[in-house]
Order: sequence, then structure tokens, then C-alpha cells
Amino acid sequence: METVAENKCFGGIQGVYSHDSRETGTPMRFSVYMPPRGLDGPPPVLYWLSGLTCTEENFTVKAGAQRWAAEHGIAVVAPDTSPRGEGVPDEDSYDFGSGAGFYVDATAEPWAANYRMYSYIVEELPALVEAKFGLDGARRGIFGHSMGGHGALTIALRNPDRYKSVSAFAPIVAPTRVPWGEKALGGYLGHDRAAWEAHDACLLVARKGWPGGDILVDQGDADQFLTEQLKPELFQEACGTAGVDLQLRMQHGYDHSYFFIASFLGEHFEWHAERLGGA
Amino acid sequence: METVAENKCFGGIQGVYSHDSRETGTPMRFSVYMPPRGLDGPPPVLYWLSGLTCTEENFTVKAGAQRWAAEHGIAVVAPDTSPRGEGVPDEDSYDFGSGAGFYVDATAEPWAANYRMYSYIVEELPALVEAKFGLDGARRGIFGHSMGGHGALTIALRNPDRYKSVSAFAPIVAPTRVPWGEKALGGYLGHDRAAWEAHDACLLVARKGWPGGDILVDQGDADQFLTEQLKPELFQEACGTAGVDLQLRMQHGYDHSYFFIASFLGEHFEWHAERLGGA
Repeated sequence: METVAENKCFGGIQGVYSHDSRETGTPMRFSVYMPPRGLDGPPPVLYWLSGLTCTEENFTVKAGAQRWAAEHGIAVVAPDTSPRGEGVPDEDSYDFGSGAGFYVDATAEPWAANYRMYSYIVEELPALVEAKFGLDGARRGIFGHSMGGHGALTIALRNPDRYKSVSAFAPIVAPTRVPWGEKALGGYLGHDRAAWEAHDACLLVARKGWPGGDILVDQGDADQFLTEQLKPELFQEACGTAGVDLQLRMQHGYDHSYFFIASFLGEHFEWHAERLGGA
Repeated sequence: METVAENKCFGGIQGVYSHDSRETGTPMRFSVYMPPRGLDGPPPVLYWLSGLTCTEENFTVKAGAQRWAAEHGIAVVAPDTSPRGEGVPDEDSYDFGSGAGFYVDATAEPWAANYRMYSYIVEELPALVEAKFGLDGARRGIFGHSMGGHGALTIALRNPDRYKSVSAFAPIVAPTRVPWGEKALGGYLGHDRAAWEAHDACLLVARKGWPGGDILVDQGDADQFLTEQLKPELFQEACGTAGVDLQLRMQHGYDHSYFFIASFLGEHFEWHAERLGGA
């Protein structure tokens, strides 16, 4: 693991690191915010999954997360959204390939060798980062935005033993039924739609529920992707049927940007802190 | 004035606008954060001046200012750091020309026609923006970072009737005596050093004091520019001699980045709010 940058921020350290990933076969960057340390042992950790076109940088510099992470004594890990670079297949679009890994393990060619973001996020990255930084893997939460909200929800729902809390901002909740999802799942997993079902938050919650208790979702009602790509009402319906306590908050006048995320991020930290326990 | 973007943020509106500037002879961009409105009339306004290489965007997306501005009911205006674009003279360096206007009115050629950032910040921009957004120009403060800290200090010290409060992060305080300043003032104002003196915070505070009362400066002690370019001890000395109450806070382990600014920005807002009165 290589240190790209470290900056003191709100009394802790905001770092960016790079390592050679076994899963993706590429160097992968991620950021870690380590809160100021008290005497209370290893801090809990929140994983942030970003949306289309993002790298590890967007959340790290735009969200204002450090202030809240420091206050609650929670470490925050933000990975890149796909493998990238020389030798990695890509295509010229913002919603597939580089910056658009969709948090699945691809099975279709030419994507299968590198696009293994599901295993990277669930297995490889936590094993590396929690050991290196001394984090409490028993108090692990996950959240994200848009494509990353899809990642957070599907990863938590599939691994309730590994994540104690999950929340999302403007998530893609029904990728088997919206254009972004159909393109991504079709591309990475092939045309057999049965294989897509394991990556659809609505289908997962209907099938498996959520033993973690409740789920928080914030959604701006001025979001330009609301009606075509996001459709939070489908997740609300699925959670209702499954008896899962979803707090879906429609936020008036907010769009899809980091200005929206920043506005409610403090409340997500508070929500996760209550479920993970602070430092 | 043209609207480039408007996003709801912390209950207010973060906007980016463009207008044709009389002073610079170019289109100029600036951002305005309008806090959620109460019933208390026009809000006070803080002007943020950015450092080398920045546009209006850096502070707007990286500093987390909206949270504090909303809380205190203060509007925030962040202009670009120079004229730029077709027909504007420039040179291939990060510390002179585009992104490096140094908040002076250039008198040397070929800079004199466009590089009029002093008059732009002091006269043209406030007249435009305070009328358009309904801001209380009698409660106006100014702050900034690095080159923008230099701008904030020199502009406030020269115009104590126009600014009720001033603070800075890692400011250039003695541009007549450090490489960044010597290059910029020599380039924009010519080689007669007497003309530089009106843009040196140390010389200004020694000559004119600060009727506003006190001045707040935060400086990281791990700042890579501390000893060669910034030299806050010179300003401390000058304020001491002039009997001006400077609160110079050396912040341990912090560098020159926006991670440093974000960490202490809330305290600067609080400090300005006390002197300007909130909404």
C-alpha cells in the first residue's frame, strides 16, 4: 500500500492510498479518513460508495464528511468506482466501464477479468484497510450515492452479517428495471436477466429482508434522474411488502449533486453512529 | 448577469453566476451562497478571496462553507482570482497571470487593461451583487486564503469604512518581501517599489492600524509555504507595533490545503458573525 497524500483535517488524517488489487488486477486508489483518536479502542468504519463518473476524490473533497466523522469518531473509507488505466477494457460512455463499475463481479467478456468491484468492496478492501488502520470490522456500515447507493444497498442486503447499518442518497434501487441498470447489468453480467437479480435492491429486500433493522434513504425531489432512473417508490413498496423499516425522506428542492449530499450527510453520520456506536 | 448553476444546499441556494465586468473587460464568474431566509431583513455578506490557481469553484465545492453560512444567516460571495480567457494577457506560470491576479489594479503593460482585481473586488462586485441579492452592505466582511488572505487583509486595511470584519487563512502578509509577492507586484505594478507598499498588509497595518478592532489569522505549522512565502510573524510584529489586536493561531500539523481551511472555517464564520451580526 502506497501513500498518495495525507492531510490533517478536523484533528484527524485524511489520506489517499493506492494498492495493487488482487480482484481487479490493477492499482486501486481509496481514501481513508481517520478521526482523532481517543482512548476507546478501534473506531467503527463507514464505507462510502460513489456514483457514476466519480473517483475516490469526489466524496473526499466535496462532501464535508471529515467534520462529522471527527465528531462521531468514525473512520470513513471511500474507494474508486471501477478499475481503470492501461490494459483495462473501457468504452466511451459515462455510465459503463471506467467510473461505472456498478459494484458487481462481471462475468461477461471483456469485463470479467478486471471489473470485480463487488468482491473488491466486500472482501479485499475491508481486509486490507481494517488491518492497516486498526478499524473495528465488527462495527461496519455502508452508504453511498446514486450508483453507489445501489452498491451500498445491494452489498448490505446480501451481507447482513458484515454490515450493521446502511443508508443511501438518491440510490438506484431497481437496476433491473431502469436504463442505467439494464445497460450495466446487461453489459457486465450478460443477457440472462436471472443473473441480474442478485444486484437489485428491490428484489433483494423482498427476498431477504434486512435483519439490520432499518434503512435510511434521502432523495431530492428536484433530482433530474428521479423519475427515469431512481424511482424510490419501488424500494418503498418492496420494503413495505418485506416488513423492512425504510425511512425514505423526500427532500424538497434538492437535486442530484454533492450540494444535496453535503446538506444531509451529518444526519446520515448521526444515524450510522447510533447503530454502530461511536468511538 | 447570467445564472451558470443554482443548487439547493443546507436550505439555501448555492449559485454560480457570470457577468461582463467593466473593470476587467471580460466575463467574470462568481459564486453566491444565499442562506435560508428568515424574517430579519437583508443578510450580512462575507467575501471570500481565493488563492493562487483557484477559480470561484474551489471554495464553493471544497470548504463546506454553506453549512456555516446557513447556520449564521450570512451570504457568501466568492469571485474568481483573475480575469481570464481570449484576449487576456497571461503567462505560463501558476503564480502570475491567470489565476493569480493578486487583488491589485495593474499599472504595467500588458496587464493594466484587464488585471483590475482590486477595483473589481472593492467596487464593482459588491455594487452588483448586493443589489441583485438584497444583501446588507453595511454588514460586510472579508476573508481569504493565501494570495486571497493577502487580498482580504490589504483590501480591508485600505477600506475600513467598507469592511467591518476581516480574517485570513495562511495569508501572504509581506508581499514586498517574499518571492510570490515580489514577482506579482513587480509584474503588475512595475519596478518602483514605492507603488507596492499600498498592497502589503504589514506596511498597511503599521501605517493605518485597523479601526475594525481585531483580526483573526489561522496558519498551519506544517504549511509548505510557511517560512519562504507566508511569514506570519512579520504581521504579528507589525500588528504589535501598531497596537492592533491580532489573533494569530498556529494550528499544529495543518498544511496549506482546503482540508486545513475546512477544519477552521466554522470558527471564522462564528468570529465574523459576532462582528457583523447574524441574520
